[in-house]
Amino acid sequence: MKLCDFSFVGWIAASCTSFGFLPQIAKGLKTKKLEDVSWGMLWVTFTGVTCWLLYGIVKSDIILIIANVFTDSTLVTLILMKKIFKRKNNA
Amino acid sequence: MKLCDFSFVGWIAASCTSFGFLPQIAKGLKTKKLEDVSWGMLWVTFTGVTCWLLYGIVKSDIILIIANVFTDSTLVTLILMKKIFKRKNNA
Repeated sequence: MKLCDFSFVGWIAASCTSFGFLPQIAKGLKTKKLEDVSWGMLWVTFTGVTCWLLYGIVKSDIILIIANVFTDSTLVTLILMKKIFKRKNNA
Repeated sequence: MKLCDFSFVGWIAASCTSFGFLPQIAKGLKTKKLEDVSWGMLWVTFTGVTCWLLYGIVKSDIILIIANVFTDSTLVTLILMKKIFKRKNNA
């Protein structure tokens, strides 16, 4: 192992941004409300994360690939939750 | 310019994830509410984005650096807005 191996910074970054939307999912499941969460944020971030994933694939960067597959799945979960809560609250 | 220059994918990714929190700021400014937005999401993502920034600096990757400086500034804005709205709503 190199003395100055900074790949751990990448792994912390990947972990935090990958797990970043989990607290939002947890809060949403608890309160059954995601009204204040912006559709724009969810869709723009989803598009961006999907592009980071492609960038990671092109650059063969395993950290980018794993991180962004996970983040995309949490974003899809939030989008579905917001759709379901919206339908229920309008019913 | 190379025929298969995929750096544009990185730039789209960087733009979308950098601008991703702007719609949330806009919605927050409009509704003066960020109650449903999770503190955990904001802080964990802020930590992650800051680490991506360090990773970008270490790897001398200009796309990572620019993207994450901007994202961090939007996250700080959201954190401050949520604090201010919380104080006002409790007053």
